[in-house]
Amino acid sequence: MVNDVLTGAFAPVVTPFLSDGRPDVDRFIAHCRWLLAQGAGLAPFGTNSEANSMSALERMALLDALIDAGLPPARMLPGTGACSAPEAAQLSRHAVQRGCAGVLMLPPFFYKGISDDGLYAFYAEVIARIADPRLRLYLYHIPALSGVPISHGVIERLLRDFPGIVVGIKDSSGDWDNLRTMLERFPELAIFPASESFISRTRPLGARGCISATVNINPGPISRLVTQWDGPEGQVLQAGVDRVRQIAQARPMIAALKEVLAEGLGEPGWRRVRAPLVGLAPEAAQALHAELAEAGFKL
Amino acid sequence: MVNDVLTGAFAPVVTPFLSDGRPDVDRFIAHCRWLLAQGAGLAPFGTNSEANSMSALERMALLDALIDAGLPPARMLPGTGACSAPEAAQLSRHAVQRGCAGVLMLPPFFYKGISDDGLYAFYAEVIARIADPRLRLYLYHIPALSGVPISHGVIERLLRDFPGIVVGIKDSSGDWDNLRTMLERFPELAIFPASESFISRTRPLGARGCISATVNINPGPISRLVTQWDGPEGQVLQAGVDRVRQIAQARPMIAALKEVLAEGLGEPGWRRVRAPLVGLAPEAAQALHAELAEAGFKL
Repeated sequence: MVNDVLTGAFAPVVTPFLSDGRPDVDRFIAHCRWLLAQGAGLAPFGTNSEANSMSALERMALLDALIDAGLPPARMLPGTGACSAPEAAQLSRHAVQRGCAGVLMLPPFFYKGISDDGLYAFYAEVIARIADPRLRLYLYHIPALSGVPISHGVIERLLRDFPGIVVGIKDSSGDWDNLRTMLERFPELAIFPASESFISRTRPLGARGCISATVNINPGPISRLVTQWDGPEGQVLQAGVDRVRQIAQARPMIAALKEVLAEGLGEPGWRRVRAPLVGLAPEAAQALHAELAEAGFKL
Repeated sequence: MVNDVLTGAFAPVVTPFLSDGRPDVDRFIAHCRWLLAQGAGLAPFGTNSEANSMSALERMALLDALIDAGLPPARMLPGTGACSAPEAAQLSRHAVQRGCAGVLMLPPFFYKGISDDGLYAFYAEVIARIADPRLRLYLYHIPALSGVPISHGVIERLLRDFPGIVVGIKDSSGDWDNLRTMLERFPELAIFPASESFISRTRPLGARGCISATVNINPGPISRLVTQWDGPEGQVLQAGVDRVRQIAQARPMIAALKEVLAEGLGEPGWRRVRAPLVGLAPEAAQALHAELAEAGFKL
């Protein structure tokens, strides 16, 4: 029933903006094309995409532009979460109707201390509102930002009640115990750690790859690691991607990724972020480039 | 410049839902009429309104319905916050164009660890997008749910750069020191504690009243306390509203308010909440009613 789930390294695609603040559609499409050519999949409208800094209409228009440009929706897992069930359903329905392989859905993230019953009810309501058997829903566990962890009890109920619809999860907790426990307890679930640093450890246990910020700048090596994680070659690959990851995540991640793209592509426009985020200070940017160069990184 | 700011007790109006999940427009209007008749003002689409569980379109349609029904926008302070600047601006522009006295705006609440520069830039961008001199913006400080506190440094910069536009703040921190410090440091700011329990202590220091969940069920006494906080009569009033508040806030607040309205008005539909919230269990509801009856409370 879940044979159609995704595998590979997915980029939560960073979103370029024009000087007037609107999304830069052409640059966005070009970046996505490059990611695909490097072997990565696309998870646009994630945390690292500044998705929640965009309106629902902006997100849907960007997805349309991507697919209308000929990029394959079968390699897309757009983020469609929202605090309200109507908006999460609207975004998801649109993605399903455009043929996307799946949707990656945050829990509602305004109220805190949410009960398992309430969280289950939210996902169940959104699924009912989408009302499309083609839906493939990936849960998005990112407690540090959402403030609403997705418990194993909720996952179990959703898998039981929506088999073949709820098919996966992205785990951004960074918690190895949570990953390992889910891999053991839910073998039918397509599990994606949010960092490539877990690939060698989790692929043998059944993880599908990763959905990781740094795929935006390091898509080739991370994609290769997902299939070649075993043996000495895998060890070398793992060490290499780990080094780049460590350097990037020592900074505010989104600003760092955009800085690397701006510098590497000679496109200063990539540096723009939407408020409330801010870009890297010039000294921080210089240090980032110096460390990456020392590690032998090249875009 | 800020003579037109609001004073009084405002209800973050709870939102009734129909059995199919849509907002119950007629019941909403009736509740708002009753609140106004009791002397309270309206702060629809706040935390206790489940605003973030509604889409932007649902929120704007409800505000239209309220004003089209003849209720006075001069007594309305709708919540127009959103994670994205475009959506916060859209909701705010709509409220300003409909003549609302002001808008109450959450910070963007997905990203955490936001810098003062980033938070200032967000509000500045939203104000620029609204582009209407009639705007009166009240900041909404609710760190426990937003995860993004509004620092005094940000308030100072906004007051300096947008005088007469940024005019007030709702403080839901429950932190007496924060309230007192703001009352001293920003005399030009219209400060609304989020609980009636602060009225006697903060009115003599210049606070404008309160924007409090329990105004939904206790609007008359709380509204009277805002003007009659002084002397023995004030003490009696304060003790009375404190007792009701204590009983309500010992439960999940939104579910408790709706339970009180459902029981008191004989309208079971009031019990409906949107996921991810859940209603009170029957035993919890019984205990709530028993405690309120013992305290002499009547809707």
